[in-house]
Amino acid sequence: MTGLPDLSTTRVRRTPTTLADGRDFFYYDDSEPYVSGEQTRRLDDPRPLPDRFAPIEGPDGVTQPVTGPQMRYDVLTGEWVPMAAHRMNRTFLPGPDTNPLAPAKPGAEYTDGEIPATDYDVVVFENRFPSLMRVPGEPDETTHLDGNDLYPVRPAVGRCEVICFSPDAGASLSSVTPTRMRTIVEAWADRTAALHAIDGVQQVYCFENRGAEIGVTLHHPHGQIYAYPFLTPKTQTMLHQAVAHRQRTGRNLLKDVLEGELASGRRIVGESEHWVAYVPAAARWPVEVHVAPRRDVPDLPATTDAERTDFAGLYLNLLRRLDQFFVDADGTPMPLPYISGWHQAPVVHGRDDLRLHLQLFSIRRAPGKLKYLAGSESGMGAWISDTTPEKIADRLKEIA
Amino acid sequence: MTGLPDLSTTRVRRTPTTLADGRDFFYYDDSEPYVSGEQTRRLDDPRPLPDRFAPIEGPDGVTQPVTGPQMRYDVLTGEWVPMAAHRMNRTFLPGPDTNPLAPAKPGAEYTDGEIPATDYDVVVFENRFPSLMRVPGEPDETTHLDGNDLYPVRPAVGRCEVICFSPDAGASLSSVTPTRMRTIVEAWADRTAALHAIDGVQQVYCFENRGAEIGVTLHHPHGQIYAYPFLTPKTQTMLHQAVAHRQRTGRNLLKDVLEGELASGRRIVGESEHWVAYVPAAARWPVEVHVAPRRDVPDLPATTDAERTDFAGLYLNLLRRLDQFFVDADGTPMPLPYISGWHQAPVVHGRDDLRLHLQLFSIRRAPGKLKYLAGSESGMGAWISDTTPEKIADRLKEIA
Repeated sequence: MTGLPDLSTTRVRRTPTTLADGRDFFYYDDSEPYVSGEQTRRLDDPRPLPDRFAPIEGPDGVTQPVTGPQMRYDVLTGEWVPMAAHRMNRTFLPGPDTNPLAPAKPGAEYTDGEIPATDYDVVVFENRFPSLMRVPGEPDETTHLDGNDLYPVRPAVGRCEVICFSPDAGASLSSVTPTRMRTIVEAWADRTAALHAIDGVQQVYCFENRGAEIGVTLHHPHGQIYAYPFLTPKTQTMLHQAVAHRQRTGRNLLKDVLEGELASGRRIVGESEHWVAYVPAAARWPVEVHVAPRRDVPDLPATTDAERTDFAGLYLNLLRRLDQFFVDADGTPMPLPYISGWHQAPVVHGRDDLRLHLQLFSIRRAPGKLKYLAGSESGMGAWISDTTPEKIADRLKEIA
Repeated sequence: MTGLPDLSTTRVRRTPTTLADGRDFFYYDDSEPYVSGEQTRRLDDPRPLPDRFAPIEGPDGVTQPVTGPQMRYDVLTGEWVPMAAHRMNRTFLPGPDTNPLAPAKPGAEYTDGEIPATDYDVVVFENRFPSLMRVPGEPDETTHLDGNDLYPVRPAVGRCEVICFSPDAGASLSSVTPTRMRTIVEAWADRTAALHAIDGVQQVYCFENRGAEIGVTLHHPHGQIYAYPFLTPKTQTMLHQAVAHRQRTGRNLLKDVLEGELASGRRIVGESEHWVAYVPAAARWPVEVHVAPRRDVPDLPATTDAERTDFAGLYLNLLRRLDQFFVDADGTPMPLPYISGWHQAPVVHGRDDLRLHLQLFSIRRAPGKLKYLAGSESGMGAWISDTTPEKIADRLKEIA
């Protein structure tokens, strides 16, 4: 909890605390009287959760230390794959009808959700079931499966955090106020800076999965923040392309792409003082939009106060239009299932070559139809689009 | 139709013909009396289909030449993305209750499916809606979208073919006889060799999508064959890894992986004289099996008659076990939704570094649960597994 980034220049109050099992938990409040004020709300977690890292008793009655998630190196692709083989204390599970992201009920002594306080603006906390986590005392060493050099194995250190966008389970990110969206941007930037400082973290990804069609079972508006202990394949690929472009032209690839979109104008779907939203020229998803800052910026912590405020307005406008992209047979808008996430420069590599941008995409290709990632996409990594970027842009432009 | 591969050493009779709109169509028959025999069955296509490549009248009444599918270069990833912007003659569509892969009804003068004959063993034909196709006369030139060097565009030349595994709409690949499976392997090998010879084709992928869960709407047992005009991202990645391994060790990566699996034995789920089936050490899907030949073989055309026959038995056994991998609450086996495809060496590149193997995987992670490719996988290309390769192997080993 030490060494948190400085928030003194922002309009947000960050209140760090800890859940009963030791997980970090942060309130981000944007207006007085602060809902996480210690005078009026309970901040401590009253649940009888065991320490996550306390030794646990196995089926044989023998007590053993907990182990963290591991990851294996896929020698055929050069990619690390975290795997859910770890053993953790998981004695507490919210009931099936419980929304673990809802605020605690006022007056109740006990909460079966994850939020101790009875109200909040925005909160961030460590995921109860992390795929990436450092277990204290576990050595961060590479070993080899079967003793074979081809099969390296390492602890999947890093972090998986959850961010709740609203205390209202029926809300969506598109329905929050500009001030609240601004607070969410602040939380993303703050957590990115803090996670960048964790030993072993190479890259931070703030993203939202929205909609049952992509497997979301918890409809309370929330996102996730992953701090990876490796460069993700997508980032490696983009870095490779950006470095090659710089070596060939002396210029920044992502800046040139933005300038190309601005010069063409054909696929621009939103502009503000500091940001540009466009459908990329080779969009591969049925709906895809990128949002990039006009200024060269490697990541969210490097954005200015004005850029954050400006983004909030542009993004809300974009999300509201996306929820009208498809309409059903009666002409009623169908909220879009989507994945939206921030491509940020890694902690060390590519700080001058990669440039902050948000990528939002959907697998819905028609009111009743999804794009499935079948043989070509999942087997060979070769995407085939059923539409064109210009058609996507035209539809977004016609929605007020 | 000229220059077809030599089939004289096989047990299969290939009968090439042409559909009414000019698409190539091949019967592969494995026993006399051949069901595609011209004496007993109609081979011609009686449907009034227009020539696919005849000029078509636009909404403005002006007749224009058809255009083939185009693909755009995604400069952020270095990948080509075929896009469905082409205009083709598509006046004929089978009715919604029609199975276009069923044999024609005996005695009927007209068929509204794709198969003119009233019976078949295995057939292969060009897809009516190809994402990859060369339109005669269309120049295979690279141009640039918006005149911008960052946005290359090219015709998506190549081929998309359909392979029907059985005339029985209620069958599945796992239910065909070993002889029929052997014929299917023959058809895959024959089409791979033929497609490798097409100008512009760089790589051939024979695959099967099976199950509604991955978007299959046509349940007649069938697969697809794609001939790509580029190296797919997955193949490029594997080639990069294989070349690096050879430069470091002087050895073939895929051979070393197979030897590693054989030496360990921990994840072997099937062996025959010529083939080995194993769960890869870094399997990223909830169910994943690779099947590799014991001998160094770049692609299916290079396999021997004995290897093809041997594969048929091993693969049938594997498919039948996979359909028992998950059972419902009553203990009833649940047929597995899966994607299965052959990684083959490209036409030119990597013939000595890449090695034939089949990759079969499923998105089902529990009886009622699917693995969704959400933010980490679809946004960052970073897979996270909910299981371990050893658990997958143990389950397959316990199924007789």
